[in-house]
Amino acid sequence: MPDTPSPTIHPAWLPSSAFRALGSRRVRIDAAGPLADTVRAEVSRACSLFGGALVPPEAPADLILTTAPAASGGGEGYRLARRGAATVVIADGPAGLLYGMFEVVRRGEAAFDPALPDERHEPAFGLRVLDHWDNVDVHPVMGQVERGYAGGSLFWRDGRLRDDLTRVGEYARLLAASGVNAVTVNNVNVHAGETHLLTDRLGEVAAIASTLRPYAIRVHLAVNFAAPVILGDLPTADPLDERVRRWWSDTTDRVFATIPDFGGYLVKADSEGQPGPFTYGRTHADGAGMLAAALAPHGAPVRWRAFVYNHHQDWRDRSTDRARAAHDHFAPLDGRFADNVILQVKYGPIDFQTREPVSPVLFAMPNTRLALELQVTQEYTGQQRHLCYLPPMWSGILGFRATGDNAPTLAALLSGAPGLPAAAGAPAAAGSSVAGSGAGPGGAASGRTSGGGVLSAVSNVGDDPFWTGHPLAQANLYAVGRLAWTPDRDPAAILDEWITLTFSGAPDRLRRTLHELMDDSWQTYEQYTAPLGVGFMVRPGHHYGPDVDGYEYTPWGTYHFADRDGVGVDRTVATGTGFTAQYPVPWSDRYESRDTCPDELLLFFHHVPYTHVLRSGVTVIQHIYDTRFAGAQRVAEMQSQWRELAGLVDPAVHARVTERLAEQLRSAEEWRDQVNTYFYRKSGIPDAKGRTIH
Amino acid sequence: MPDTPSPTIHPAWLPSSAFRALGSRRVRIDAAGPLADTVRAEVSRACSLFGGALVPPEAPADLILTTAPAASGGGEGYRLARRGAATVVIADGPAGLLYGMFEVVRRGEAAFDPALPDERHEPAFGLRVLDHWDNVDVHPVMGQVERGYAGGSLFWRDGRLRDDLTRVGEYARLLAASGVNAVTVNNVNVHAGETHLLTDRLGEVAAIASTLRPYAIRVHLAVNFAAPVILGDLPTADPLDERVRRWWSDTTDRVFATIPDFGGYLVKADSEGQPGPFTYGRTHADGAGMLAAALAPHGAPVRWRAFVYNHHQDWRDRSTDRARAAHDHFAPLDGRFADNVILQVKYGPIDFQTREPVSPVLFAMPNTRLALELQVTQEYTGQQRHLCYLPPMWSGILGFRATGDNAPTLAALLSGAPGLPAAAGAPAAAGSSVAGSGAGPGGAASGRTSGGGVLSAVSNVGDDPFWTGHPLAQANLYAVGRLAWTPDRDPAAILDEWITLTFSGAPDRLRRTLHELMDDSWQTYEQYTAPLGVGFMVRPGHHYGPDVDGYEYTPWGTYHFADRDGVGVDRTVATGTGFTAQYPVPWSDRYESRDTCPDELLLFFHHVPYTHVLRSGVTVIQHIYDTRFAGAQRVAEMQSQWRELAGLVDPAVHARVTERLAEQLRSAEEWRDQVNTYFYRKSGIPDAKGRTIH
Repeated sequence: MPDTPSPTIHPAWLPSSAFRALGSRRVRIDAAGPLADTVRAEVSRACSLFGGALVPPEAPADLILTTAPAASGGGEGYRLARRGAATVVIADGPAGLLYGMFEVVRRGEAAFDPALPDERHEPAFGLRVLDHWDNVDVHPVMGQVERGYAGGSLFWRDGRLRDDLTRVGEYARLLAASGVNAVTVNNVNVHAGETHLLTDRLGEVAAIASTLRPYAIRVHLAVNFAAPVILGDLPTADPLDERVRRWWSDTTDRVFATIPDFGGYLVKADSEGQPGPFTYGRTHADGAGMLAAALAPHGAPVRWRAFVYNHHQDWRDRSTDRARAAHDHFAPLDGRFADNVILQVKYGPIDFQTREPVSPVLFAMPNTRLALELQVTQEYTGQQRHLCYLPPMWSGILGFRATGDNAPTLAALLSGAPGLPAAAGAPAAAGSSVAGSGAGPGGAASGRTSGGGVLSAVSNVGDDPFWTGHPLAQANLYAVGRLAWTPDRDPAAILDEWITLTFSGAPDRLRRTLHELMDDSWQTYEQYTAPLGVGFMVRPGHHYGPDVDGYEYTPWGTYHFADRDGVGVDRTVATGTGFTAQYPVPWSDRYESRDTCPDELLLFFHHVPYTHVLRSGVTVIQHIYDTRFAGAQRVAEMQSQWRELAGLVDPAVHARVTERLAEQLRSAEEWRDQVNTYFYRKSGIPDAKGRTIH
Repeated sequence: MPDTPSPTIHPAWLPSSAFRALGSRRVRIDAAGPLADTVRAEVSRACSLFGGALVPPEAPADLILTTAPAASGGGEGYRLARRGAATVVIADGPAGLLYGMFEVVRRGEAAFDPALPDERHEPAFGLRVLDHWDNVDVHPVMGQVERGYAGGSLFWRDGRLRDDLTRVGEYARLLAASGVNAVTVNNVNVHAGETHLLTDRLGEVAAIASTLRPYAIRVHLAVNFAAPVILGDLPTADPLDERVRRWWSDTTDRVFATIPDFGGYLVKADSEGQPGPFTYGRTHADGAGMLAAALAPHGAPVRWRAFVYNHHQDWRDRSTDRARAAHDHFAPLDGRFADNVILQVKYGPIDFQTREPVSPVLFAMPNTRLALELQVTQEYTGQQRHLCYLPPMWSGILGFRATGDNAPTLAALLSGAPGLPAAAGAPAAAGSSVAGSGAGPGGAASGRTSGGGVLSAVSNVGDDPFWTGHPLAQANLYAVGRLAWTPDRDPAAILDEWITLTFSGAPDRLRRTLHELMDDSWQTYEQYTAPLGVGFMVRPGHHYGPDVDGYEYTPWGTYHFADRDGVGVDRTVATGTGFTAQYPVPWSDRYESRDTCPDELLLFFHHVPYTHVLRSGVTVIQHIYDTRFAGAQRVAEMQSQWRELAGLVDPAVHARVTERLAEQLRSAEEWRDQVNTYFYRKSGIPDAKGRTIH
């Protein structure tokens, strides 16, 4: 697909016009230090554009940005209030000053409303990190960015750090404005070249860290478990070997000597071919513990991914269930991980599908610090050619109450975990750690002090002029940080914020249409792709477009088991793989029964006849047909709706989205027809409405 | 799969020991010139090993190699006979001397039997060419050799000609000993770098030509139709544009100035993305004619591939039939091609499948010179990991009688075509051209003078120590040249020759077991892969291993249309695509009817219920199950049989074949289980014998 040429980089959610309200005020900054300097530069730039002014200490001001007298370094929270005729931001620390300033930007004129209520803001999740699956060397299969759909890497090009990091600085600014505070600069699949970032190529990482630092973004590094062998000339990477432990400790000391605010390590071990502790007969607790010991003196964490499963499964073996793998591997290790190990868990038990149940691992390890891993890059959700606003999915995950309808949400459980050490990636507010995991309902998002929890997400940006390929996919990136601060915020409200900033001065028609296009776009995508939670059905390898049987007879453990009578995976205790038992009550029971299992996950948990009647009242086969037709039809409508917006948005944005919608429609019709034909050929049951099935 | 290391290059069918009989004789060579020098060097080497001697003119000899008094340059035929106590080879020309010498080698002691009958030998096909799909630059997807399963290219490495062409010389020697007389040195997909071989990189081609020449092998070049634009800075490649025609003419003159015995061009145009005359609204006759005009002054041909079809087909469109494409495109052009255009036609209407009907194009163009294209490289037949001796397939194709059971074979039709110009790739015997295409039954192989026909085949060699990856795949390469000389020779007899040469002194047990392993190995491969001629069902892209629906919903036009009731492609006139009408009577009728269509092609021509009873008496579904089980079972037996041969063959060969058979068994079981499961899930019909279907 040829990209529409664009001479400049799109400003995303920080166009100059977003600063109009702030920039036309008298602003006083009663704080000092590097982050205060960043705030000062932002305000100064805004005022130069819109006629306001930075005023000296003590001078009258419309906006006062200050740090609380008792605030200690690194506090991210702030209070937004009115004091007399001024709006004030009283920050817990320098980072809070920055976040408060961006909150004022977000509010626009409303920030200066005399009736502005007194509000305290702080992030629910202490570490809010974007993981970049960026390769330093161009990978022969995966390219410069694994699962990247927005051009090359912002950091790396053809084997080395880019000479010009201007764009990395702009990226940091965008992330700070959305609330993110850390970035992992290389792929979790750590190849040979990338392994050296830890040692002889650490200078390149330090250069990135320097570029991110003015916006309070810390740098994390994905490391190779076999690094002591590859880099250290050791004969082993055994985590219990003293030489190996010393190597990691010495190496980590050197990392912190070079980058004092280094954020931490991320590790994919014993997963899809990556090395790990299993090679040496050790556990994941042993492996993670070794890295934790090296990081502990510096107060930094290691994030250890729970994405471990057998990727050489035999499709003929129906007793093995990939969905069970993470829980089977990790739940027995609960309590055995070091304090600064964070087990990073993908949101679902399989792999970033459009619809999955929330991973049971997230509720099975009360004595382990857990991170939730989301995927902003749209690997399985349309690869930034399809419009798919993901926060409604994420919101459902964060709000999931595994142990009952009045139990804490997942967000509350995760953000209530023990605080990170002070020097770690998440500079928690002083003395604000909340121990235990028993925060009550709504606790995470209703004014508690900052938690130490971790929300991580795989980034969707690249060197594309629009950052994200599809210009509207910027909204997904924006929303991650916002949900990490306020997990129960309505996705539509976040979208509205994003529209206000990105299309500042947007007329109502534009705003309304963007909502119509985006609010339900995830559900629309689901309608024309794999039905009822069964997942996959994508082309193997690149994962774009339909191939119903593409993964059915492969070693990847991602099957749908469709035959002439029915479809779905029996994961019940009664007759299937027993996966439902990994959930706590009541969800173990709800998923176990066809009658109580939510329709949208029916085929994830059950193998049912095509004639099974859903809770919605239609049969499975008719649901498949109806939703495929409806989804593709909806995309056609979206195309018309977007066409109407010509003249209301930047022509380059309009052209790019137009081009993407054309591909989305082609692809949606291909999905509709392949899925319908596949199931019609298998079931022999015609569409009750007589529509065309090929 | 790790290769067994081998310190030396395998001698293939020319180990020194194969020369024992000749090398222990007194040999006289009554001829002069470069090819006679080659023969002299061969004999001299053999005699130095086995105690014989090259004797001077007039001296008594056991073997006399001479050219007939009337022989003109380039004659390939020869007479083998006894004269007194000597065996004599009386050649039509220098090449015949070489071929006659190798015939003596092939016969061993039997060549010196006093009762040796007087025989005349000459090739049925005048041009016997191996096309190499070798890339000069390593292609990002296809690698150094497209569809190559034997390592790198013999000619090219990492973008340039190899420094050391020793192995190319050895290859020429092997080919001469099998009867081949031409080689195309680059891929029909001519990429940017390869395009330059025609002009500024012609020196590299000339170096190959010099290396091949001592063994009477001429070099051909695959050319890019867009070369005048890429190389010549012309704004067009329109074949009717005078500048373009002049460019080709001038360029071709320079080719012949550098390589006087240059063989000709090969072109893939308007096919799978390659440029061609359609771009300019011209016909293939126009396109080929332009190149023919450039080559005509040099008496050389252009081979123009008929592999033209729509590779962006919509799977939803069931009226388009890829099988029809070549005939639809080319048959209307019959008579419009220049005399030195050879239309090169793949053996089947689709693409080198394990089982296809013979392409109807081969019988539809009586006024056009046609070449048959075979594929030695095992793209769809196990990729040289599976043992698959292909001559039984080729023999069936060459022996196919399209117009009736007493009509001429395909080989007779093709080899009876008008002779090539004297200077072309095929140096026909003086005055031996046979006009017309009406050679009678058996004519091609029973002593007629050499025809001008063309047999081409895609080579299966690479820089692998065993030449072909699987050591036993050497037999396929050997057989091509032999069948091009004698198309009606029994494949088992050719295999026997190959065994005698390759395993010289082979005990009966080895010979017998090799026949058991190889004679029916093509049918065994067919048994466990796609059933009843339906084709494909391979993994898209690399084409190895099963994926029943892999191509079912793609743009490639290769479908099986399996649903819950039946499977196969309706290509009848009555109810299908009408493809059967492209055949002459009686085969158009035979294929049209389910009752007369051969079982092995039933699903190529018909969509039938799973319960349809085959001519063999079993249902389609039971046939699918039975043959999948039998095929995999047979591979297990082959493994045992090969194991028994340890000690009888070179340990390196034994180890390599053992490793390949292990993979073949794994793969055959995977094929068996995927195909069986797929059809069981669709049909719901259990195996009548109750075997395990997953």
